[in-house]
Parts: sequence; structure tokens; C-alpha cells
Amino acid sequence: MSNAISIFDTTLRDGTQGEGISLSADDKLKIAKKLDQLGVQYIEGGIPGSNGKDIEFFKRVKDLRLQAKIVAFGSTRRKDSIAEHDSNLNQMINAGVQAATLVGKSWDFHVHTALQTSLEENLAMIYDSIAYLKHKGLEVIFDAEHFFDGYKNNPDYAVAVLKKAEEAGADWLVMCDTNGGTMPHEIHSIVSTLTHQLGAANLGIHTHNDCELAVANTLSAVQAGARQVQGTMNGYGERCGNANLCSIIPNLQIKLGYDCIDEEQMQQLTNTARYISEVANVHMPVNQPYVGNAAFAHKGGIHVSAILRDSRTYEHIVPELVGNKQRVLVSELAGQSNIVSKANELGIEFDPDHPRTKEVIQKIKDLEHQGYQFEGADGSLELLIREANGEMKELFNFESFKILVEKSAGQPSVSEAFVKINVDGNSVYTAAEGNGPVNALDNALRKALIQYFPNIKEMHLSDYKVRVLDEKDAAAAKVRVLIESQNYQNSWNTVGVSGNVIEASWEALVDSMRYALIGKKKSDFAPDVQEHQGIINL
Amino acid sequence: MSNAISIFDTTLRDGTQGEGISLSADDKLKIAKKLDQLGVQYIEGGIPGSNGKDIEFFKRVKDLRLQAKIVAFGSTRRKDSIAEHDSNLNQMINAGVQAATLVGKSWDFHVHTALQTSLEENLAMIYDSIAYLKHKGLEVIFDAEHFFDGYKNNPDYAVAVLKKAEEAGADWLVMCDTNGGTMPHEIHSIVSTLTHQLGAANLGIHTHNDCELAVANTLSAVQAGARQVQGTMNGYGERCGNANLCSIIPNLQIKLGYDCIDEEQMQQLTNTARYISEVANVHMPVNQPYVGNAAFAHKGGIHVSAILRDSRTYEHIVPELVGNKQRVLVSELAGQSNIVSKANELGIEFDPDHPRTKEVIQKIKDLEHQGYQFEGADGSLELLIREANGEMKELFNFESFKILVEKSAGQPSVSEAFVKINVDGNSVYTAAEGNGPVNALDNALRKALIQYFPNIKEMHLSDYKVRVLDEKDAAAAKVRVLIESQNYQNSWNTVGVSGNVIEASWEALVDSMRYALIGKKKSDFAPDVQEHQGIINL
Repeated sequence: MSNAISIFDTTLRDGTQGEGISLSADDKLKIAKKLDQLGVQYIEGGIPGSNGKDIEFFKRVKDLRLQAKIVAFGSTRRKDSIAEHDSNLNQMINAGVQAATLVGKSWDFHVHTALQTSLEENLAMIYDSIAYLKHKGLEVIFDAEHFFDGYKNNPDYAVAVLKKAEEAGADWLVMCDTNGGTMPHEIHSIVSTLTHQLGAANLGIHTHNDCELAVANTLSAVQAGARQVQGTMNGYGERCGNANLCSIIPNLQIKLGYDCIDEEQMQQLTNTARYISEVANVHMPVNQPYVGNAAFAHKGGIHVSAILRDSRTYEHIVPELVGNKQRVLVSELAGQSNIVSKANELGIEFDPDHPRTKEVIQKIKDLEHQGYQFEGADGSLELLIREANGEMKELFNFESFKILVEKSAGQPSVSEAFVKINVDGNSVYTAAEGNGPVNALDNALRKALIQYFPNIKEMHLSDYKVRVLDEKDAAAAKVRVLIESQNYQNSWNTVGVSGNVIEASWEALVDSMRYALIGKKKSDFAPDVQEHQGIINL
Repeated sequence: MSNAISIFDTTLRDGTQGEGISLSADDKLKIAKKLDQLGVQYIEGGIPGSNGKDIEFFKRVKDLRLQAKIVAFGSTRRKDSIAEHDSNLNQMINAGVQAATLVGKSWDFHVHTALQTSLEENLAMIYDSIAYLKHKGLEVIFDAEHFFDGYKNNPDYAVAVLKKAEEAGADWLVMCDTNGGTMPHEIHSIVSTLTHQLGAANLGIHTHNDCELAVANTLSAVQAGARQVQGTMNGYGERCGNANLCSIIPNLQIKLGYDCIDEEQMQQLTNTARYISEVANVHMPVNQPYVGNAAFAHKGGIHVSAILRDSRTYEHIVPELVGNKQRVLVSELAGQSNIVSKANELGIEFDPDHPRTKEVIQKIKDLEHQGYQFEGADGSLELLIREANGEMKELFNFESFKILVEKSAGQPSVSEAFVKINVDGNSVYTAAEGNGPVNALDNALRKALIQYFPNIKEMHLSDYKVRVLDEKDAAAAKVRVLIESQNYQNSWNTVGVSGNVIEASWEALVDSMRYALIGKKKSDFAPDVQEHQGIINL
């Protein structure tokens, strides 16, 4: 039997059924692009039959020209009706996708209780729907809902369902542990039986984590003959989540020797997981296997001296295989190589043993201890490194800002910002309005800078994220703001941290302007300003 | 072979090696008491040889007179020394515990690299240490560190280690997957072999979650003959955590028919897990299996109508078996059934066909289209439903607020809020400072309300989330704020949406206070206030 496993990602469909996850069409497109780079074979994008946002996604995803097959999801036709007239099925066809997932009942209990129809009609629903979509040229993945519960209660019917789907031309027969309650040895036994009965090289597995066994159940099924695995990034999904692809992919490939994605793609696993958690705005647990921040973090002492002698003493794989890294809370060595390497990227020579290098490392560690995070804020990191290299000539100095926000019942709110900076001995004092305090601050800061540095005009904020850091006393907690800015050629990220969300935003804003001004000079665009001293009011 | 499984809880020892967990002696005593009520057989309390807090714990825990056996943890004696003179071993004896865990090397690689000694000396260290503690009357649990890696690399030596421990009188031989990298089928195979070789009814298993397989590995080992399982509550522990007892116990007992704790104790599982996460001050993931808030929460409309007919359609066990309960979420995927069911939960009769029901559904969909999200904001949802039911008597009306934030270079920022509300015709105008604008607003609003509604004192903000909704023009985008509030009995979530982060926070704050006041009346705590008209300045 082949070692190749098809990875079927349903982050954008089943994943969105998790509590606290809500993705716009834009979010879905960003994630789809990242999934495609990771190398998954199928990306299930949503349910065109019931969701306007998803119809938009299916339309716009075509422009991305992804390698992965885009899949639409839907149910088998309604009972006692005709497939060709079923609006859900037709929506799936109209979505213009390459492949479709059809979910059908395989547990007699569900056929009677939930669908309230006969076992024969259910089989017809399955047959008709698959045949219709096959006739329309789609690849069809059949999801046998509640398969294992169905098999345990009425094995003949469950198998009949799969056979009917196969007869109708289904390309994949996916056995779903929909309620998440099946045990790994049961999965292995049932899938083995089916592999023999159906001789199928096209069996798939779709598990849920209600017993904390979704990953184990998936591995079990593959070892028993399944060749497609369905899951979500970071295990997002209804109740306790779907099977976590971030654990499944390295387990299958690095541990068990199957083929899923290529080596470079595997090294993107950690980045991909983090990126998706950012877009979905779901906190990624530090202790997540393989890709979590603490997955290869060692608390000092005995473990540390052992791993410094040989990582294999306390690490089950080399972290870089999945794009993660070892963290040692008491060590200079790990930090040094990162900084030196980053500096080299920027064309700056950093000698690992130079006191300046150690200073920068210490400064970065201190800042990270306060909540700064530089891996999502390369702009701020670059500023730090250039500063340490003596390159940064501060083009402007901050003097003060004030924010005023007012709201009366029944009136729209009003936000104003007042910013005072100093450029070459000249105080510049601006006032601006905005939709909110951060917008007002951004407007005021730009007003102040643009007259000296016109290229500020070319850049704009393209993303703004806020994360609360300490949860003990929520409204007094520290806040981390990440800003993404763009101009025509480039985009960069900057960070700010403070107990005050406005101050944190200010930091990140200022860094984003400083970054835009790297290498620029004060313009001689405003000669009269250069001659006057004193405060210029705008 | 007996069906009885010994549950060995190491939350207070291995669990504390996780990032972000730090327990005082008091914390440990509270947790130990709760664990004892749950019915675990062993509670590993700490490392007397290296931790003053733990010596205090072992002393004070005797007064609790717990049923469970209290266990001290430590290493085998140092190489080339005498057990009787080993300070760690003597500390364990002096701790006055009933049982002790001794951890020893069982992987030849570790003996050479980490311990830097010979294979024979390692065996002697194990023998001497166990024999010494047995001689002193302690029950001894031997933890064979890195057992599975050791067995895979040098099976004879790994088995020799276990035999030596048994020879010395160890009561339990625990095989540890210390690096967390072993696969379930390997565990099953190795433990089966050992069960036959050692004929042991006293094998134990201790796994780690680096591959998201700790629970599966534990079940595997039990099915192959192990009869003690080691783990932590909520899976706390180094890197990706230890095996999660909150999943293992119900899996072993409810699913696989083993005996761990009694039925009433099983119904305490959810409470116990939540209590411990509170004491440890670690956020409990909503999607945690069995005990998480969302473990039995249903979102999709189709799922909800099915479970309302029969829970078994989408639930793998009855939630009450582990002390949890079913929840129905209301969201964009919701239909009628979700709203009606939610209203019923609140004791309100909603007729699915009544125009008022349709109005509420429409209102919720409209708000969601603007960016509100109710599934994470049950507090705001309840307010909407009660409003539609004609129940909400507004106890206060909002008049206005102002926020001022000032920052000068080199000075800490200053945030102030001014809030004007109206209670029964009386204008109340307050001013407050805070760490940031939202904190200041919260303080000012409380000041205004507390004099009329003293129970506001009991509640506090416990979580605060901000999400930017449209990304096109990031600093002018809409923002959604979710606030979690708590008092002694309850916790609730409320939401606010606006282009202005302050205004969005205000909405969510006000909803959180309105929720706290449901069913309350204006207190007659401040009679003079009731008599005066006009503005009261605080």
C-alpha cells in the first residue's frame, strides 16, 4: 500500500464551528493561501448552500490560483426530492469548485431520529447526490457521518452506506467519528475490517477530540489502511475540536514515515500555525505540541545542562524540522545565533563576541519579558538592531500627546488627538480628529511628520491587532499592539506594549514611522520652516 | 487481571514544571484536599530535597488527614556514594510521607551522557536507594525515566533496570515516556512484552504530550497490562504537559469499563478541574475534553435541532456523568431552535412561531452582521432576550462619558474618565483615574453605580479581548470588545462593537453591569440620595 497520505484541511469549514471563531471571506482567503503554501492537498472552504460569506470566498479564491483543490461542503439531497432540484447541491455546483464533500447519514438511529426517514430512502439520497455531482464533473468526497457509532450499532447498514457511495462514484469514503467518542483500538479494528471488505485505497478518516483522542484515532486509522486524513489547523472545531493537523502531519511523516508534504513545507508548520491563530484571533496555547512556544522549552537546571550536551536527552525531535526552536530559559547561546543571523540578513556585521551583541540580546530579552514579541514585529526588531549598530539618527523626538474621546447618549462619539514632536529643534504641535483614539493619533502624527518627510504620505496602516497579556486583572492588564504598515514596495510590522492601549498603539505607530524613515533625510520641501524657531501650529 | 486502576496524581510536582505555573504551599494544600475528594489514590506533593515550600507542604498536609497516599519525589542516590548518606533520600524520609517516588535512568545513553557513569553503577544506585527507603518503611514507586527510548535502544538494559528495582522491593515499576515521543502502538507492544516478562501486576505508565498522544499512550499501556496511571489535572506539565487525568479517568472508567473512582466522585470531575485551574490561576481552555465549557456546546442549527430531539445524536456521553452540562450556542449559524432553547435555559417561554421570537432572531442576525458575536457573549444575549420578553427595567440611563489620556516624554501616561449617568431622575457624575482609558472608564462607572447598587462591588473584570473587524483601513476599522466578568458564583461575557475602541469597551462594560443587576433593585442603602434631586458629584 502506498505511503502517500492526502491531507484534507477543513479549518475554514468544520474549524469555524468552534466557539469563538468567526472568519470573514478575507480571513478565509489569507488562510487558504497559507494552507496552500504548507502543501495540504484539499482545502474545504465552506458551505455555499447556507452562507453568503462562503459564496464570496469560493468566487474570489479562484484568483489565488492555488495548487490545493478547493472543496465545497454540503448535505445529501433532502429526503423525498430530486437531486437535480436540490438547492444546496446546485449551490455547490455553481460555486465552481473542483471538489465537493457530501455528508450523509450512516447510523440508522440518525436516519430515523434526525432525518425521520427510511433506511432505503437514505441510501437513495446518498446515491443520487453523489451521482449528480459526479455527472457535473466534480471530485466527490463522501463523509459518512457518525460512521463508527453507526458501525457499532448496525454494521451491515454502515457498510451498505459506504458501498452505495462507492457505487455512485465517490472518490473518497471518509469515516467520521462525529461525536468524538470512539476509542483508538475500535477505530483500528473497524478500519482494518473495512480495508479488507472494500479493498479500498480511498478510505479517509475524520475524528473529533471529545476524548482527547482525535490525533490517536487518526493515526490508528492510517495504520489500518486509511489514506486521507481530515482535520483542522490548531485543532479548531466544534466542542473539543477536530483532529489537529499540526500534530497529525509531523506524527505521520516524521514519526511514522508516511509522505504528506515536503521537507521545506514541514519547516513552515510552526509559522503557519501561528499565522492562522493570528488571523483567526484565537490565542495559541504555549504548550501546543510541535508548534507551541513552549513545545521545546526547558526550565533551567538538570534538563538544561543535559540538552546543552546533547539535545536528544530531552527532545523527541529536532525542533527545526517543524520550524520551531529550542528555548532555554537560562542561556546565552540560543539568543546569540538568532540576533547575529538577523543582523546578517540586514547586511550588518555583528560579531557574536562583541559586547554590543550581548547588549542587544539582553535588551531584547528584557523587552520580551515585558511582553514585547519580535517575531511578529520585524520592523521594531530591525530598528533595535540598527540602533545598536549606531545607525539610527533620530529624525524626530517625541514631546507629548493627548487624547480626548467624548460620547453623549444618542450622539456619535468624537475622538481628538494632540501631538507635539520636535524636528531639529523645531516644536511641531498638531491636532486631528478620527474615528477613534488610535485613528486620531495616527492622523495627528502624520500631520506633524508629513511637512518634513513627505514620503510618509505613501505609507498607511494595513492591520492593527491588540492582545491582552496578563489576565489576572483584565482591565488593568498589559496590552500588546501589533501594527502592519505598507507602502508601494514593502510592508512591515511594529509593536508596542503598555498597560494603556493608547500608549501601546502610540509606540507601535511611532516605530512604524521611524521604520519608514530609515535612510531618509529631512526634506528641504519646507524652507520657511527650517528658518523659524519655535512652535508651529497646524 | 483486575480492573482496578490506581490513579497517581502529580499535578503538584510534575505539573508545576509547566511554564506559567507556580504554587505556594497553601495552593498545594487546597488542591490536595480537592484531589482527595475526587478519589485519586496517590498525590505526589513535591520534592523535599530541593524545595522549602514542599517541606512545608508535607508537614502541613498531615493535618488534613487525607485518604489518598501522600508521595514525595526524588532521584536515586548520587553516583559513587552511599544511600544512607544521601541528603535527598533523607529529606524524603524526614518528610514523614507514606510513599516515595524514586526516579532513575533506564536509557543507557542518559547514563553515559547525563549521569556520566557506568551501567553497573546506575543499577547499584537504583537498588541501594529503593532498598534504603523500603527499609525505612515507605511504599516505593520507581519511575524509570526515558523508559521507552531506553527500551528501543537497549531493551536488555531497560528491562534489567526494572528487574533491579523489583528486586530491591519497589512496589510499582513505572515506565515513563519522558520525552513524549513514543507512539501508541509502540507503547502497547513494549508494555505487553513486559507484562509477560515480569508477570507484573504492578506496572505503571507516565506519559507526556509532545505528540498530542499522552492520553492515548496511557490507555494503550493500561490495555496492555499497566495498572497505575500517572498524570496531572488539566494536563499541566513541562513543555506540552503531562497526561491529562481529566480525560484519562473518564476514558478508562466510562468508556473502557475499568474502576478508578466512584460514580459521585466522577460527577465532581468538572468542578475539580475548574477549581484547580482557579487556584493555579491558569486559564482553562473552553474546548477541553469532558470538563471544558464548550465540551458539550452545540453551534450549528442542524446539530441543535437534532440534540433537542435526542442528546445521543451529537453527544458521546451524558454530560452530567462528569458534572458538565449541555449548552446551546447562538450565532450566525443559529436557527430558531437555538434561541428558543436559550430562552428556555433562562426560564422564559418562547414560542417558536411567535412574531417576537422572529424579531429577536432578526435583531441578533442584524447585530452580528455589524460585528457583534453572541456566542462568546451570553451575558449580552441574555439581556437581549429578556428585553424582548419585556423584563428589562433599566435601572440606570447613560448620559455621557469623556476620556482623557496624556503622555509626555519620560513621564508615565495618565488616564482619566468622567462618567455621567442618571438613576431614577438623579444625575450622577463621577471622575476616576486608571492604568489606561478602559480601566479608568470601568472605575468611573463603578463609582457611579456602587452607591445605588452595592452588589457591583462583588464583580470584577476577569478577561478583556479586542478584535479588529475590517482590515481595509486598519486604524479606522470597527473593533469588537468582549469582556468576561465574575462574582463569587458566576461568570458572564458581554460584547461591544464600534469604530472607536473606547466606545466598544464602554458598551461591553455597561452590559456587564446591567447583567449583574438583573433582578436587583435600587438599594435603600443611600436614603439621602433618594431624596435629593440634581447632580451628585463624587
